[in-house]
Amino acid sequence: MIVAIDIGGTHIRVAAYEPDSTKPIAQTRVPSLANQPGVFDRLSQAVESVWPRQKVDAIGIASPGPLDPYTGTILDTPNIEEWVNFPVGPKLSERFGVPVFLDNDANMAGLAEWQFGAGKGHHNLVYLTISTGIGGGVICHDQLLQGSHGMGAELGHMIVDPDGPPCGCGHKGHIESFSSGTAIARYVNDQLKAGQKSTLQTDPGLSARQIADAALNRDALAISAFERAGHYLGMAVANYLAIFDPSILIFGGGVSQVGDLLFKPFEASLREHIFHLHYLDNLVITKAALGDDAGLLGALALARMRAA
Amino acid sequence: MIVAIDIGGTHIRVAAYEPDSTKPIAQTRVPSLANQPGVFDRLSQAVESVWPRQKVDAIGIASPGPLDPYTGTILDTPNIEEWVNFPVGPKLSERFGVPVFLDNDANMAGLAEWQFGAGKGHHNLVYLTISTGIGGGVICHDQLLQGSHGMGAELGHMIVDPDGPPCGCGHKGHIESFSSGTAIARYVNDQLKAGQKSTLQTDPGLSARQIADAALNRDALAISAFERAGHYLGMAVANYLAIFDPSILIFGGGVSQVGDLLFKPFEASLREHIFHLHYLDNLVITKAALGDDAGLLGALALARMRAA
Repeated sequence: MIVAIDIGGTHIRVAAYEPDSTKPIAQTRVPSLANQPGVFDRLSQAVESVWPRQKVDAIGIASPGPLDPYTGTILDTPNIEEWVNFPVGPKLSERFGVPVFLDNDANMAGLAEWQFGAGKGHHNLVYLTISTGIGGGVICHDQLLQGSHGMGAELGHMIVDPDGPPCGCGHKGHIESFSSGTAIARYVNDQLKAGQKSTLQTDPGLSARQIADAALNRDALAISAFERAGHYLGMAVANYLAIFDPSILIFGGGVSQVGDLLFKPFEASLREHIFHLHYLDNLVITKAALGDDAGLLGALALARMRAA
Repeated sequence: MIVAIDIGGTHIRVAAYEPDSTKPIAQTRVPSLANQPGVFDRLSQAVESVWPRQKVDAIGIASPGPLDPYTGTILDTPNIEEWVNFPVGPKLSERFGVPVFLDNDANMAGLAEWQFGAGKGHHNLVYLTISTGIGGGVICHDQLLQGSHGMGAELGHMIVDPDGPPCGCGHKGHIESFSSGTAIARYVNDQLKAGQKSTLQTDPGLSARQIADAALNRDALAISAFERAGHYLGMAVANYLAIFDPSILIFGGGVSQVGDLLFKPFEASLREHIFHLHYLDNLVITKAALGDDAGLLGALALARMRAA
C-alpha cells in the first residue's frame, strides 16, 4: 500500500492505493491555507484520515519546489510561506513510521504521464506544464531526471533571451517569462499601457483564459500575445530536443488548453529553430492525459519505484 | 579485446585494448584525408594493422556527428564530405565480423572522462568541449544521454539569444556562435573591421590562441573577446545546471586551455545567471584529464559497456 500526497497552493490531496492499482481506495482533499500557520498539521490530519488498515509501504509526495528529494526538504517555495528549509519528508516519516519519497510537482506529473498516461512505452520523455509558471519533468532512458541536488529538469528557468522580461524567480529572459500565463497577461497589459487598441482592458488580474477568449473573437492584441508566447516556446523546445532528444513531448497545465492559438505559432517556430530535422522524425507531441490527478499519481509512482 | 577508433577531420586513430586496461597493446594513426575519396578504405586498413590475434569482442568508434548510434550511420558530417547517410557501423561489422558501437566524439569524450578521467565516481556529469565548435556529453544518473534518435546532448546548439550571430550550422544565436574559437575570432575580426584599435589585424585565419596571446599582452579588444565569450558561456552553463543539475562540469577542447581569460568572466556570469545558488553547492568545475585520448577511450568504454 502507498499513501500519495499532492501539495498545492490551494489544496492538499491525499489518497491511498493498493498494489498495481491507480484507483484510490480512500482519498481526501483539504484547503492548504498555504500562507496560514499549521500547513503540516493539516497535512498530517489529511494523511491520517485516509490511512488504511493494511500495512503501508511508503508515502509519496508531489510538492511545489525548489526542494531536495534526497533529504526530503522543501528549500523555499513561494506557495507555502512557512516552509523554508522544511524537512517534510523526515517529519512525516517520523510521524507515520514509513519511508517518505518526494519530488516537485512537475517532475511528478512527468513521471505519472510516463508510467500511467500519455507517455507509456516511451524511453525518453519531456513533459512541460504551462500555467502561471512553466515546469518540466524529464525521463532519460527510462530514468527520472533528478540530478545531483535533485534540482534537475527546471525547464521553465532556461534563459532564451538575455534581454527578455523579468521572470517570477528574479532572473531575466527565462522561457517562463515569455510563455507562461503570467507572461502572456503581462505582455497584454504592457501593450495596452503603451496604447495598443484591444477589446481587453488593463487589469492586473487578467488571465490567459480571458485573453484566449478575446483572441477567439479576433482581438489582434490577444492573438499576437499567444503568437509571441508560441514563438518563444518553439525556440525553447528546439533547445530541449537538441538536449534530450525525446520521442514524446507532453504539454500539461491550463495555458496548454488554449490549443491552436498557442500551438500553431509554436509548431512553426519549432520547425524554424530546430537544430536538425531528424529530431522531429516520429516525435509525438501531445497533451497530458492525467489532468488534475498527475501530481498524486506521480507521487504514487515515485513511492512504488523507491520502496521496491 | 576491444578495437577502438577515433575518426577526426585530420587523423584516424585506432587502438586495440585488452580487458580492464586503458593502455593499448597496438595502435596506429593515419591521415584521414577527409575530403578525398576512400576514407572507409583507409579506416579499414588502419583497423587491420592493429587487429590482435586474440578474439575481438567489439569495435567502438568516436566520430564527428550528427550520427545515429542505433543504426551505426553517419548522417552528414561537415568533416568528411563523402559520408552522407553512411552506415559505417554495419560496414565495419560486416568486414570484421564483430559488433560495432559508435557515438559522436563529444559524447565519447564525456563518457571517457566519466569512466577513466576527471569525472570518475560522479553520477551526473556535463562535459563541454570548446574548440572550433562546442560539443557536449552528458551522464545522467550513471547513464550516457543519447536520446531517442541518438542525437541528445547537442549542447553547443542551444539558443541563448535569438538575435545572436550565425552559427556554423546555419541557425542563429547558439552558444557555439558566441563562445567557440571560431566565434571569438569572428568577433575580433568584426570589431577590427568596425575600426576598433588593437595589436591584432583582420585575418580570416585568426585563431583563439593568437587572440589569447594578444590578451595576455593586454590588448583590450582581445581581452573583451574572451570576456564576451565567457559571459555567454556562463549563461549557457546556468541553463545546463538548471536542466541537468550535475555534480561535475568538465571542460575540454583547445579554447578551454586559455584559462582565466575565459573562466574568470565565465564564473562571474554563471553566478549572476544561475537560477538557484544551491546548484553550485559542491559543484566541481574542472579541466578534462584525458587530452587527445578522450575519443579513443570513450569508444573503448562504449564498446565494453554495450558488448558486456
